[in-house]
Amino acid sequence: MRTETPRSAGLLASSLVLNTPQTPDADAFLEARAARTGHLVTEVPLDALTDWRLDDRLSHVSGRFFTVEGLSVRTDFGPVPQWSQPVIVQPEIGILGIITKRIDGVPCFLMQAKLEPGNTELVQYAATVQATPSNYQRVHGGRSTPYLEYFREHTGRRIVFDQLLSEHASWYLHKRNRNMIVEVPEDEDVPVGDDFAWLTLGQLRGQLQRGNRVNMNARTVLSGLSYRTGAGPEDDPHSGDVPGDAFQRQVVASHRAGCSDADLRAAMTWLIDQKARFSLDVRRVGLGELDDWVCGPDGIRHREGRSFRIVGLSVAAASREVGSWSQPVLEPTPGNVVALVCRRRAGVLQVLVQAMVQPGLTDRLELAATVQLTPGGLRGPEDLPPLVEYLEAPEPWIRLRSLQSEDGGRFLRADTEHLVIEVPEDHRVEAPDNYRWMTLGLLNRLIRSGYYVNVEARSLVACML
Amino acid sequence: MRTETPRSAGLLASSLVLNTPQTPDADAFLEARAARTGHLVTEVPLDALTDWRLDDRLSHVSGRFFTVEGLSVRTDFGPVPQWSQPVIVQPEIGILGIITKRIDGVPCFLMQAKLEPGNTELVQYAATVQATPSNYQRVHGGRSTPYLEYFREHTGRRIVFDQLLSEHASWYLHKRNRNMIVEVPEDEDVPVGDDFAWLTLGQLRGQLQRGNRVNMNARTVLSGLSYRTGAGPEDDPHSGDVPGDAFQRQVVASHRAGCSDADLRAAMTWLIDQKARFSLDVRRVGLGELDDWVCGPDGIRHREGRSFRIVGLSVAAASREVGSWSQPVLEPTPGNVVALVCRRRAGVLQVLVQAMVQPGLTDRLELAATVQLTPGGLRGPEDLPPLVEYLEAPEPWIRLRSLQSEDGGRFLRADTEHLVIEVPEDHRVEAPDNYRWMTLGLLNRLIRSGYYVNVEARSLVACML
Repeated sequence: MRTETPRSAGLLASSLVLNTPQTPDADAFLEARAARTGHLVTEVPLDALTDWRLDDRLSHVSGRFFTVEGLSVRTDFGPVPQWSQPVIVQPEIGILGIITKRIDGVPCFLMQAKLEPGNTELVQYAATVQATPSNYQRVHGGRSTPYLEYFREHTGRRIVFDQLLSEHASWYLHKRNRNMIVEVPEDEDVPVGDDFAWLTLGQLRGQLQRGNRVNMNARTVLSGLSYRTGAGPEDDPHSGDVPGDAFQRQVVASHRAGCSDADLRAAMTWLIDQKARFSLDVRRVGLGELDDWVCGPDGIRHREGRSFRIVGLSVAAASREVGSWSQPVLEPTPGNVVALVCRRRAGVLQVLVQAMVQPGLTDRLELAATVQLTPGGLRGPEDLPPLVEYLEAPEPWIRLRSLQSEDGGRFLRADTEHLVIEVPEDHRVEAPDNYRWMTLGLLNRLIRSGYYVNVEARSLVACML
Repeated sequence: MRTETPRSAGLLASSLVLNTPQTPDADAFLEARAARTGHLVTEVPLDALTDWRLDDRLSHVSGRFFTVEGLSVRTDFGPVPQWSQPVIVQPEIGILGIITKRIDGVPCFLMQAKLEPGNTELVQYAATVQATPSNYQRVHGGRSTPYLEYFREHTGRRIVFDQLLSEHASWYLHKRNRNMIVEVPEDEDVPVGDDFAWLTLGQLRGQLQRGNRVNMNARTVLSGLSYRTGAGPEDDPHSGDVPGDAFQRQVVASHRAGCSDADLRAAMTWLIDQKARFSLDVRRVGLGELDDWVCGPDGIRHREGRSFRIVGLSVAAASREVGSWSQPVLEPTPGNVVALVCRRRAGVLQVLVQAMVQPGLTDRLELAATVQLTPGGLRGPEDLPPLVEYLEAPEPWIRLRSLQSEDGGRFLRADTEHLVIEVPEDHRVEAPDNYRWMTLGLLNRLIRSGYYVNVEARSLVACML
């Protein structure tokens, strides 16, 4: 389908356009790249990892990349007041960057078909650039990172989005990456590498809806996009007449409602109230100090098999910076779910978010989805979070259900079910005090303001685009 | 002097008014309170502190208030790549709140004459409320905190400023307090307690210029005020005609220049660039693991007397929540200085700030003053920071010089010299890459955005109001 669009069409037009003369078929492109990728991913003992050393922590001999250490946690948020766990420490700030450019007037995004060894679907669409300083300074002696200069030497470029955002704060300590979208002028030639393709937002939406085709790093960057006038690559002149299905029309309208400066300030004040309500104290400790965890050459695991385990992975692949390597990964227990409950109030779609303390967050607490469930981490049904009953919502309430991967560069088989549930207008949701309804426009402004929305919620927001 | 002001005058008018029918003489009020305060502050051994325990860390038996622990630091910022030091850990978020109200149309601020045992000048003007949860939940069984309800139950109130801001990140780990200014309507009666007084901004400026009369907590809250239209208690209609001395006219104009949304985004992107450039890795350790520090009943001190020492303080006083108590305090080596270098460009005053890594910052790096010098922490002249030569600037360049106390509830005799230096228009300052010129308006917007400006720089900004 080729839709006629004006030269100056904005993000909304991009979400309705499924191809341009320069965009490939998104399914076929990904499948061709996946078929071409010669790869072999094997689980190995930790002591078989080249250049990794396990003592009081698990670390790379170079001192770079990341370490796995122990974390001692005390908090009055949630059912468990105190625990210890392994945690990934990676103080480096990586760049997750997408180049956007108008093609025939329609904003397109330069996506990379990228293999990540931990993903169930090995090859997925990633951001144009996804690199840590350890990568791009070539600690492992690999190839240079293509397109990095668009983000490192950005002076004079139009920066659509640029923010440090948190990542998986149950598994990482204080991890954040720089999320960037940089726009190049329509007449600037951008060479398109072999594994790269321009996609419209409509194509990306299709891939997101199918699940496990757009990786976590791309999803967090895309969550910075908004249908709000002025927040996308260009002001969108088409606010009146939005085609697409009824729910997407609601999404677009919600991006444009309830997000004034005053709304933003009120939400921030409410969030500070929540930060002051709950306590969190974390302390890095040695792996040997984790009472409930067993550390050995075959991996690091919970005595009762809860939460996750750390194992080794050996990778041989052609399409990454280096041909083959081995590394530790974190494999969560299966069954993780994130769900966003929505409702309409005065005709406007709102989503229910919660202020959630997580041990690895930089500032204690961020907004999370209505339900963020890690069943493998619970001691029993008494640990189930509030509103978990909405995971059993009747099928007609479900607006989105897909499986999405977490970062396959650090996590193994970490597939999270993503659910968006719209309750009927006469249905009343009884939520605790640390929950709050907001429009997608307000949630997007909070995402664009820094450490306010956690990565699981941002992933859901990207899937709703 | 009583200046005629219109009913709807704003912050600028308040800075020019030196009294109202309801404001006392600021000097006399403070001196009367100081004279009335019966107090006795004595240094005591750590093991003489009631309810405090020194083992691998120094802590209160209740588990509340704060602890002194060890911190192991690695960074590539500055001359020292790795060190260990004691650090104060206080995960609680306190409230620093000032009530503002128009009196005869002029915004006034409700200030408290407050004793803090560590201050050289024991009684100073503090915020209306200055309280940690340990205080206001009355862990030590003291009196309730007056005016707390204006900040804790703020629904429906006009919130002029509300932000979590960092504090002394060389001495505290991840410490932040909630800085608030709440406006009550002109016709709402606010009972004025014995130790409280309404002051105009002009009166506060006078006290700030004299030094050691407005405490650190009040200064950080006041740094959220701006002469920019719309940022103060009310839009200011007097932008055209600003009396006062020539430098203050420059200050007011600088609050109103170079601070558009685009300027703010550009500054934030530059700050993220700096965060990505430098590394910081901190780890809490036991006091016994600090090689260069000696811990004993008589205190915790550096073997060579550098940086600071931790000692005990016994306090008997009438005008605090409890009559007497004892606690540990941190006494820095004397001679600390913060200096802001200013210049005029195209007629607009700009200040030179630097992106500075400090071990206790929540997000690695914030903006600091041009020079932030702790001479007692240096190994020798080779550790002197860039631009330190401006501390010897000729007297005609000096716009402000005063001694200001740090938080006298935690620090002993911690007086920091505050300097503002304006270089001549034809003088060129050679600054490293992590330094940047900005207007006071932009710096104020960054202060209001969260963890962007450190407390030493905020204190200078407040002194320039």
